[in-house]
Amino acid sequence: MKKAFFITLLLLISLGCKKEIESSVKEEVSSTKKNEFAIIIHGGAGTILKKNMSDEKETEYKTKLEEAVKVGYTILKNGGTSQEAVMKTIQVMEESPLFNSGKGAVFTHDETNELDASFMDGKTLNAGAVAGVTNVKSPIELAIKVMTDSDHVMLSGKGASEFAKEKGLEIVDPSYFYTERRFKSLQRIKEKEKTALDHDDKMAVFYDSDIKNAKFGTVGCVALDKDGNISAGTSTGGMTNKRYGRIGDSPIIGSGTYANNNTCGVSSTGWGEYFIRNQVAYDISAQMEYKNSSLKEATKDVIQNKLTKLGGTGGVVALDKNGNMSFEFNTAGMYRASMDDKGELVVKIYKE
Amino acid sequence: MKKAFFITLLLLISLGCKKEIESSVKEEVSSTKKNEFAIIIHGGAGTILKKNMSDEKETEYKTKLEEAVKVGYTILKNGGTSQEAVMKTIQVMEESPLFNSGKGAVFTHDETNELDASFMDGKTLNAGAVAGVTNVKSPIELAIKVMTDSDHVMLSGKGASEFAKEKGLEIVDPSYFYTERRFKSLQRIKEKEKTALDHDDKMAVFYDSDIKNAKFGTVGCVALDKDGNISAGTSTGGMTNKRYGRIGDSPIIGSGTYANNNTCGVSSTGWGEYFIRNQVAYDISAQMEYKNSSLKEATKDVIQNKLTKLGGTGGVVALDKNGNMSFEFNTAGMYRASMDDKGELVVKIYKE
Repeated sequence: MKKAFFITLLLLISLGCKKEIESSVKEEVSSTKKNEFAIIIHGGAGTILKKNMSDEKETEYKTKLEEAVKVGYTILKNGGTSQEAVMKTIQVMEESPLFNSGKGAVFTHDETNELDASFMDGKTLNAGAVAGVTNVKSPIELAIKVMTDSDHVMLSGKGASEFAKEKGLEIVDPSYFYTERRFKSLQRIKEKEKTALDHDDKMAVFYDSDIKNAKFGTVGCVALDKDGNISAGTSTGGMTNKRYGRIGDSPIIGSGTYANNNTCGVSSTGWGEYFIRNQVAYDISAQMEYKNSSLKEATKDVIQNKLTKLGGTGGVVALDKNGNMSFEFNTAGMYRASMDDKGELVVKIYKE
Repeated sequence: MKKAFFITLLLLISLGCKKEIESSVKEEVSSTKKNEFAIIIHGGAGTILKKNMSDEKETEYKTKLEEAVKVGYTILKNGGTSQEAVMKTIQVMEESPLFNSGKGAVFTHDETNELDASFMDGKTLNAGAVAGVTNVKSPIELAIKVMTDSDHVMLSGKGASEFAKEKGLEIVDPSYFYTERRFKSLQRIKEKEKTALDHDDKMAVFYDSDIKNAKFGTVGCVALDKDGNISAGTSTGGMTNKRYGRIGDSPIIGSGTYANNNTCGVSSTGWGEYFIRNQVAYDISAQMEYKNSSLKEATKDVIQNKLTKLGGTGGVVALDKNGNMSFEFNTAGMYRASMDDKGELVVKIYKE
């Protein structure tokens, strides 16, 4: 009897302790540093299918993604800040006509280019964003300047350009953002508009001639530096044919961009309206903080479950405080790349 | 011995079950409907101290708050939607020169009035927002129109006004927003600006002559209707002397406004930059969803702990799916009122 008593006792105690042991093991696993530093980028998500893409175009995109991610990697490897890595990496993509940001920005209904960008510093939770700027060469640089040199988080329109000028940022003639490909896209949509728009026609505003289908053009980057600081940034030209001063998710902190050293950094690309309604970038951080989700679990739930249920499409790149990285999208493809502290490079376009 | 065994067994089992019982009790309590319908509003938070406020002014504010909340209460009582209740309630405050929204909006650096507003529907998670409109009488109505009549969530500047005109909303001459009190505030700040600004001087942009101190002027409303739908809305004139097209938290979904039928609705008022960086409105919902926090626990943590730690000041009004209501602020006062389904009215200004 005595023996039975002790066996039962031990059994019950061990059962009671199981949960505690499990959770402490989980914590230990999640606090393991996977990478001392790391960088992850995207160049937009969409209906990117191999059958619609020429080998030359594919190589062009992959080469530019590799060039961009290596710029940030080198900064991080040499002990630079994640802020600098994110800015310089995004600038490579802003200067390329391939992506819908900076040089390659799409046209608005009024045949202008209106650029949006945002940046967040995971250490201080400080942030900067700009919406609707028309003559600043690097919107991501301006977003960072708003964060570092103003009392504000978000500036817009002419006021934002005025601020850029005062701070000595490079101002360009609006014609700098003219590319024939993007201008033709606008004309094509305007032609379509003459008839009533159904759902498929609404997707026409996202049409990209390189992939002969819809793409949400944005570029973004998240980096973790050797000091454990996470930074995230996003830059875009928005939606072709946009009007009424439409603002998407890219300049919205918590939707397009979020960073917090205690959890993760995120940059979004997708149908902006759904990303705002879903608070995509911050929601990933909130699930990690409040539900103890891993980065993978959180990005998967937010994109494949919550965003998809609401009818939204797009994706994110994200990175946590331990250097784990995640690409997550519910579209056919996403231009993307990453590098870890071992120098391992990943460059991908399609789902695989 | 046998007895001891069973006692130990029972004790251990009961200890093991305690947590489960507790959590099921908590769930039962939290699923109890406190109010079939309810409404809660604010007219801005700040350093509102009784010693600086005349009795006449106090009565004026309280009377207007009561008038506003009763408009929404009557709509809800008669089976109207929370959307209509929020809009009509906010319009009472937008039309009053007392509050920094609509008619009583503060002046920008360029001596104009630029209005921001946002609205969210907790049933569909659809949302609408406008930033920097100068000639639309009711910015909250425009925010709702953006939600219901456009494919977008956020419109800005001239484009937003153009959209308002196309949709037949009331357009006013910008001089409609002129009030002597607000114009004098701007001149006072410009005078101060001639000398270098220290931290206290920075607060001057929030100076309100009625309370002889700083106030974050915004109005907001959250309502739950008999169908269980939560709506939230916020409307503001922003920050006196604002420039560079600054956008605060009021038009940012997730920062100034959030609503979700599964959790709660929130409207914020405070130093906008901190509310954006903290994702104040959505964070309250996230804590309820992911941590199973009560409305009170979530609002308290977000305002008194997270916002305060970052140095932000202001407050929120919030309401959950069961009709529980919460006023939470870290300033000396907040103009506020609420009514529950029993018709019980609360109108308060100071901390008590």
